[in-house]
Amino acid sequence: MIARHFPILSWGRTYDRSALTDDLMAAMVVTIMLIPQSLAYALLAGLPPVVGLYASILPLVLYAIFGTSRTLAVGPVAVISLMTASAAGAVAMQGTAAYLEAAITLAALSGIMLAILGFLRAGFLANLLSHPVISGFITASGILIATSQIKHIIGVNADGNNWPAMIGSLVSSIEETNAWTLAIGLPVTVFLFWVRKGAEPALVRLGFAARAAELTAKAGPVAAVILTILMAQVLDLEAEGVNLVGFIPQGLPPFAVPSMDLALIEKLWIPALLISIIGFVESVSVAQTLAAKRRQRISPDQELIGLGASNIASAFSGGYPVTGGFARSVVNFDAGARTPAAGAFTAGGIALAGLFLTPLLFHLPVATLAATIIVAVLGLIDLKTPRQLWRYSKSDFAAHITTVGITLLAGVELGVMAGVSVGLLLYLWRVSRPHAAIVGRVPETEHFRNIDRHQVITVPHLLSIRIDESLTYLNARWLEEYVLEQVADRPEVRHVIIMCSAVNEIDASGLESLEAINHRLADGGIALHLSEAKGPVLDRLANSNFLEELSGSVFLSQDLAFSTLLDAEKADIAPIDHWHPRGMI
Amino acid sequence: MIARHFPILSWGRTYDRSALTDDLMAAMVVTIMLIPQSLAYALLAGLPPVVGLYASILPLVLYAIFGTSRTLAVGPVAVISLMTASAAGAVAMQGTAAYLEAAITLAALSGIMLAILGFLRAGFLANLLSHPVISGFITASGILIATSQIKHIIGVNADGNNWPAMIGSLVSSIEETNAWTLAIGLPVTVFLFWVRKGAEPALVRLGFAARAAELTAKAGPVAAVILTILMAQVLDLEAEGVNLVGFIPQGLPPFAVPSMDLALIEKLWIPALLISIIGFVESVSVAQTLAAKRRQRISPDQELIGLGASNIASAFSGGYPVTGGFARSVVNFDAGARTPAAGAFTAGGIALAGLFLTPLLFHLPVATLAATIIVAVLGLIDLKTPRQLWRYSKSDFAAHITTVGITLLAGVELGVMAGVSVGLLLYLWRVSRPHAAIVGRVPETEHFRNIDRHQVITVPHLLSIRIDESLTYLNARWLEEYVLEQVADRPEVRHVIIMCSAVNEIDASGLESLEAINHRLADGGIALHLSEAKGPVLDRLANSNFLEELSGSVFLSQDLAFSTLLDAEKADIAPIDHWHPRGMI
Repeated sequence: MIARHFPILSWGRTYDRSALTDDLMAAMVVTIMLIPQSLAYALLAGLPPVVGLYASILPLVLYAIFGTSRTLAVGPVAVISLMTASAAGAVAMQGTAAYLEAAITLAALSGIMLAILGFLRAGFLANLLSHPVISGFITASGILIATSQIKHIIGVNADGNNWPAMIGSLVSSIEETNAWTLAIGLPVTVFLFWVRKGAEPALVRLGFAARAAELTAKAGPVAAVILTILMAQVLDLEAEGVNLVGFIPQGLPPFAVPSMDLALIEKLWIPALLISIIGFVESVSVAQTLAAKRRQRISPDQELIGLGASNIASAFSGGYPVTGGFARSVVNFDAGARTPAAGAFTAGGIALAGLFLTPLLFHLPVATLAATIIVAVLGLIDLKTPRQLWRYSKSDFAAHITTVGITLLAGVELGVMAGVSVGLLLYLWRVSRPHAAIVGRVPETEHFRNIDRHQVITVPHLLSIRIDESLTYLNARWLEEYVLEQVADRPEVRHVIIMCSAVNEIDASGLESLEAINHRLADGGIALHLSEAKGPVLDRLANSNFLEELSGSVFLSQDLAFSTLLDAEKADIAPIDHWHPRGMI
Repeated sequence: MIARHFPILSWGRTYDRSALTDDLMAAMVVTIMLIPQSLAYALLAGLPPVVGLYASILPLVLYAIFGTSRTLAVGPVAVISLMTASAAGAVAMQGTAAYLEAAITLAALSGIMLAILGFLRAGFLANLLSHPVISGFITASGILIATSQIKHIIGVNADGNNWPAMIGSLVSSIEETNAWTLAIGLPVTVFLFWVRKGAEPALVRLGFAARAAELTAKAGPVAAVILTILMAQVLDLEAEGVNLVGFIPQGLPPFAVPSMDLALIEKLWIPALLISIIGFVESVSVAQTLAAKRRQRISPDQELIGLGASNIASAFSGGYPVTGGFARSVVNFDAGARTPAAGAFTAGGIALAGLFLTPLLFHLPVATLAATIIVAVLGLIDLKTPRQLWRYSKSDFAAHITTVGITLLAGVELGVMAGVSVGLLLYLWRVSRPHAAIVGRVPETEHFRNIDRHQVITVPHLLSIRIDESLTYLNARWLEEYVLEQVADRPEVRHVIIMCSAVNEIDASGLESLEAINHRLADGGIALHLSEAKGPVLDRLANSNFLEELSGSVFLSQDLAFSTLLDAEKADIAPIDHWHPRGMI
């Protein structure tokens, strides 16, 4: 029981020197990658760069204790940074103490919510975010983030709460472009793109060994950081109006209890909930993908607790909401991390950077960080998915495109909520009007198929209806209407058989509809029968009076129902020539 | 197209003298019943009695034009009156002009919402109210309404926004009981109970003919009204502190455009939506029940339009929200109404009462009206349903009991919302963890059954999994976890067959999970196969790349899949003695 909530107890017990070496090596690679990323994502969140470092220390340690993924790397990520900027920006101005407090409160709320969901084992709530909604949200966020960074590349002030406003603001301020900023921003962007795609093969062609080429290419962003710092320092670019990172306080994260102001909580709990769920879904997907590669397992409910603890830690150490990041987790995995200890070692690396490296970052141009962000998030934009969805499922396409559209036009929070709502409504709509078919017997077999799709045999006195959905409150009313309508159209019907092979559940509302159908049919002298009902469904029905009240019988198979009732009818009133092979009429 | 939105065009065309006679007769009976009811329900809604009459005139005419039920009787009903009191009471004091304005605005909003839902054909939204939630809501409303009327029976001032508060307020004011009021209220309540249950058989025993006894019993409430009016007038009970209905303005309803104040709309739109949906669900259930008795049909989407028009008409004529009432519709039906014209004639009757009868009602004791309400709503309280639900379905029981509890403790609006939320969450939870089974072949047959429930045959290299639910975004993550877990526990598996006989749909998220499963299994050298996929599901899959990427095959039947893969394995590596009849191990 305790071990379930402290996964560290299971892997910690067998920790040895070989695992230590691998974890240390991976931690070093991730630390180098994470330093510029943390600064950049803090910038994206509208926070001082040092907050990004703070969010990359304690949260990693807590995840190492409570998380179930061996290789997930936790910290600030692009989409959550954008959501933080949107939520905090709604209650305070960027750069103010209130804005920072809002970001810290978001981390605290999100951490508490995640932990509660974890203890309630309510991870299934994340299911409400379908793949099309998530992919739409990520694409739109990528577009918003990339657009928001263009101002740093060209060195202007621009603004905008939605995408058209951002574009408008950029266009109207393009004349004020700072040439020096652009002279740094543009080449760095191009360089980072090349590093991402073309550097490794180019280095191999130059004679590097494959492994050396790979590591060298990974160092690309660090090289860009170092080069542009030197440029800015040597050429005194601050005097030319180039925006630099400037002073970053040296030292370890401050420990402070989040204020948890009630008025603030009231304004922030919805964004905090969305941040929690989006962060959780993203993180779990990454963790699952990596775990599967090594045939390991993660526990989604315990992941909620792990991420919850990380975010609470972030709030207590002056950070902002964090989650498992895709790119850095893959790097951690590839670099050979074997246990969550790698994360703790990374935290140590970042702490050292916070203690000793920050003065060196004074001259880092903001344009360099913006270029890092742009190159990172353009990979998030996915134009293939909408095309596939359009081909495969119009309703999934609708949920996807609604999410993209509303996110771009009305922001991240409304975008997610609209996507979830549209997805859920379309799902409920489909379930509320399920597929159903009148079936007949395929000649010379025991199989029954849709009379509209197959050449089958029916008899006028027997009506066999197959319902392709569980009978629940969502379609209970439909069920009554549908069955009674079919009967009303066929005055010669004396027996109705509902074929339940695809009925996985009958809830109380479905049962009530069946009872109503039974009574109404009985009033008209028609018997109701069930066939192919599953074991668990029949077990349930036995706990009600339905089976006693049923005017007809329950048959194990549709074939049995059909044959039995046919014989009864023959003996009774129906002459054999009532048979009519369908398709001959 | 036009005829669809004007059902009057279909029945009006064949209207003849015989229908006219029947409708007029029914209208007379309903009018006599409706006069005290309208006054009583207006009282329950906290409105002047005359508002109840106004709400029983124009709305009935509009429903006659737009409604699809031949016998539904529209007007003020108990539950909607309670909801009106709760919503209007939240924005204004009873007895003020602002309170009346709020009630009128509720009718207008509710009418507009219903009409919009009708044009959008969004009647399926009403499905979100499951039977257990509705029945819980009605039970709790019945308790609240009956309790709220006790003060009128004993003649005290009492208050309370929730049930415990009402009881507390009654208990603390019980000493102020007005003896004369009680002397009227108690006997009338007892008399009306007896009229409801025992009068008809007693009259028959006294020698009345069955039909005469029935009609005489129906006149009971009117007799109570007349008798208590006479008593109050003769004994001058007003001077004794007995609360009388008092002055009711004479005349036809005032025509006035509802003010539609934006600030008011913002406060009232959620209650208005709940009133609309509860009213619609109640009304449609009644309409469907009655239509089925005469093998007629109603159209739920057109019913939305009919009720929408009625409520808009109510708002324009100084009324409050209305819907189809159960008791009066049954009376209308039993009295022989044949077309909605009966409703229009009833409206005429009420209009005449408004013109000429209101002075006679001056001395009507409020206690008499309260007794009418109590006797009417105690029939709503249903203690059988929770017991049945407990036996049949714990999750439906939970939704029911939550609705009862929250409605009693926190009011009608929160009660409905909590019920809907709990019902939906439990449904989503069930769908997100569907039933699934490892299946094996029943010896000597082509049938495959759950290995945990039946004596079946399996082979170690073949794993057959039956998923008893559609594969949608709600369970996509579960699907991946479940299948990979089953495989991880069985290292000897080389083929996985997913049996899709109960899979009615695969959405884009389900497809993505299948793709992920396919890739991960392929990485481990395991082939994935599908069996028994339905036609529509396969049609959809053909629009994706899944069938090309699938490492295994799609088999029409599970038996075919099993036999084919078994033969392949035999020829390949698996010796015949890998067969093991389950239950022998």
